[in-house]
Amino acid sequence: MKQPKIQAIYGAINGVLGVLHEDLVDLRRENPLSVQKLRETPSAALGTCRYKPSESDYARLLEVFKRHGVRYFLYAGGNDSMDTAHQMARLAAEEKYDLQVMGVPKTVDNDLLVTDHCPGYGSAARFNAIATRDSGLDTDAIYTSDTVKIIETMGRDTGWITASTALAKDSADSAPHLIYLPERPFSPERFLDDVKSVYDRLGRVVVCVCEGLKDDRGEFVQASSKKIDTDRFGHAQLGGVGDYLVNLISENLKIKARYDKPGTIQRVSMICASQTDLAEAYFVGEVAVSEIVDGENDKMVTLTRKSNNPYKFESGLVELDKVSLKTKKVPDEFINPQSNFITDAFLEYGKPLIGGPLPEYAHLRKERVGKLLPPYL
Amino acid sequence: MKQPKIQAIYGAINGVLGVLHEDLVDLRRENPLSVQKLRETPSAALGTCRYKPSESDYARLLEVFKRHGVRYFLYAGGNDSMDTAHQMARLAAEEKYDLQVMGVPKTVDNDLLVTDHCPGYGSAARFNAIATRDSGLDTDAIYTSDTVKIIETMGRDTGWITASTALAKDSADSAPHLIYLPERPFSPERFLDDVKSVYDRLGRVVVCVCEGLKDDRGEFVQASSKKIDTDRFGHAQLGGVGDYLVNLISENLKIKARYDKPGTIQRVSMICASQTDLAEAYFVGEVAVSEIVDGENDKMVTLTRKSNNPYKFESGLVELDKVSLKTKKVPDEFINPQSNFITDAFLEYGKPLIGGPLPEYAHLRKERVGKLLPPYL
Repeated sequence: MKQPKIQAIYGAINGVLGVLHEDLVDLRRENPLSVQKLRETPSAALGTCRYKPSESDYARLLEVFKRHGVRYFLYAGGNDSMDTAHQMARLAAEEKYDLQVMGVPKTVDNDLLVTDHCPGYGSAARFNAIATRDSGLDTDAIYTSDTVKIIETMGRDTGWITASTALAKDSADSAPHLIYLPERPFSPERFLDDVKSVYDRLGRVVVCVCEGLKDDRGEFVQASSKKIDTDRFGHAQLGGVGDYLVNLISENLKIKARYDKPGTIQRVSMICASQTDLAEAYFVGEVAVSEIVDGENDKMVTLTRKSNNPYKFESGLVELDKVSLKTKKVPDEFINPQSNFITDAFLEYGKPLIGGPLPEYAHLRKERVGKLLPPYL
Repeated sequence: MKQPKIQAIYGAINGVLGVLHEDLVDLRRENPLSVQKLRETPSAALGTCRYKPSESDYARLLEVFKRHGVRYFLYAGGNDSMDTAHQMARLAAEEKYDLQVMGVPKTVDNDLLVTDHCPGYGSAARFNAIATRDSGLDTDAIYTSDTVKIIETMGRDTGWITASTALAKDSADSAPHLIYLPERPFSPERFLDDVKSVYDRLGRVVVCVCEGLKDDRGEFVQASSKKIDTDRFGHAQLGGVGDYLVNLISENLKIKARYDKPGTIQRVSMICASQTDLAEAYFVGEVAVSEIVDGENDKMVTLTRKSNNPYKFESGLVELDKVSLKTKKVPDEFINPQSNFITDAFLEYGKPLIGGPLPEYAHLRKERVGKLLPPYL
């Protein structure tokens, strides 16, 4: 609204679907206070989509842009959305329509290439870090001979979200004790050995796993009763690994286990939003507008980390075709050699992203009273 | 520590198990700042147990109390813990040992009789209310032809926790749309009709269900692959209803569904703690100490609601045998006649308990731009 070159701002309902259907919202007519409050409102106010446009769809999209005089197209999302944006830039160039396209990174999956990280991730990471620490205290408090808890996180193809469960771990023996990422093939035998080893030492285990774990044949690890469904981009709809592992543990180790699966709650929990993430989400939007007005086209805004302590970053740009449809896996240096936890290098990477201090909890000394009786048998 | 009649304060590690094993902590030796911070620390710092003492265990418990000069026994928990406390009072009276016993209500299940509600519930309720509202916004944003979300909450025998998912619902069409409590037998046919009806109207459905749902034969509703385990009080270890309902919907309505299962996170999420609940948890502890010093015995502290607007309550006492091992179900007036949602009377009951205002979110007007093209086909 501050840019004199921009005369109208339209929002598309449910992303490109809104453009296809000409379902456009005049964002200048919104109450400025509502627009301001979007920064603290979870989910996507204009809706989202998971839709891969066909070649004729792209022609229609361009037609809508032409008729409405759209010259700047800013599209927020992950690597699928960046492909949609890139295809629009390509078609407009072919058709010699003067359109500039800018991708704005936003995905909790954190799996876009080139950018250090993606807005959205820091908040999902903060939720998972806090939830895992809290849930670990719950497991600590339970005295039984059988206490294993599985926390199943999101993460279709990558373990970024699962790795974040370690970001609030505050001592060697606190939760999480084991972390399994889809970057490594899952072995039930090694998993059972790992769980047994922690259990024998501590009497309890908190294990964080990614919904997208696959075995060494590349098959999803899940309870056999679970149906696999695929969404419109051909991604498998995941779920069921928590159930599978609970059964695996109870059948093989005779230890009782349970699982938590925060599901979509982990990506919309505004009460756990990272202030750093909120600021960066706004920042990449600002940069995108400023760069597009300055003449940039067919690029995505990136974040480059300048230092960790204090945490500093700056923006950059990358060609859309370098990020579209590509996936950034969690790199080897962030995964331990045993493939059952993350490394200190990951903690260094992740901690600045979850923003602000974590809630502080009491730790009692628990000085024991002297025993006066023979042991209880 | 303020009571001159009390010379020592011992905490038992893992409840009565700590007494049995003489595993006692001298709470006067804790840092006062740590004790203060316990008010904002999730879970149970001294641990908890799920252990039903035998008659010989009770004799041992009394022996430990005698040897350590314990004259006041305060025990916090739910209806099982109140039984343990009551049995101790009974045995001490039989043995003519001068012991006073006071039960302190604390259970997220909110299922103790006589007391208006139980400390712990308000915070679990606040988590579920906020998580359901947030998760509903997530579902709102997704444009597909198939969007049903199940949120599976805790609640062994009662629907108090499940009902709380409605406490942040902010419009007729916002989440949750359907709620199923274990107080009513679950019918797959009626469930599918209900889901279809909301889906046909809104194109999306958020359904909150209790992990303890049972069918009309009294059998738990769950995915058939799921093993049932029982803990030491003979309670079934629940889980699996979310998975079951996802499959039920996809097979019968051909609609894609998913489920969230926050699990233990819902009962330890300090970031969602209700300030009202925190204050009341402290209050019932204060009352318990003051009443026991005044000579009361074999009772539990209760909360009585005096008014809703403004919310006011006062403390009371009830004989332990009136609450031990008994379960307060969600009453009929809190469940709608169709057995698929809660009533306004429940909202009136529950809203004061979740404390303080909820986060406010933006609502856009979404004024549409005029269409200039023929419809997209």
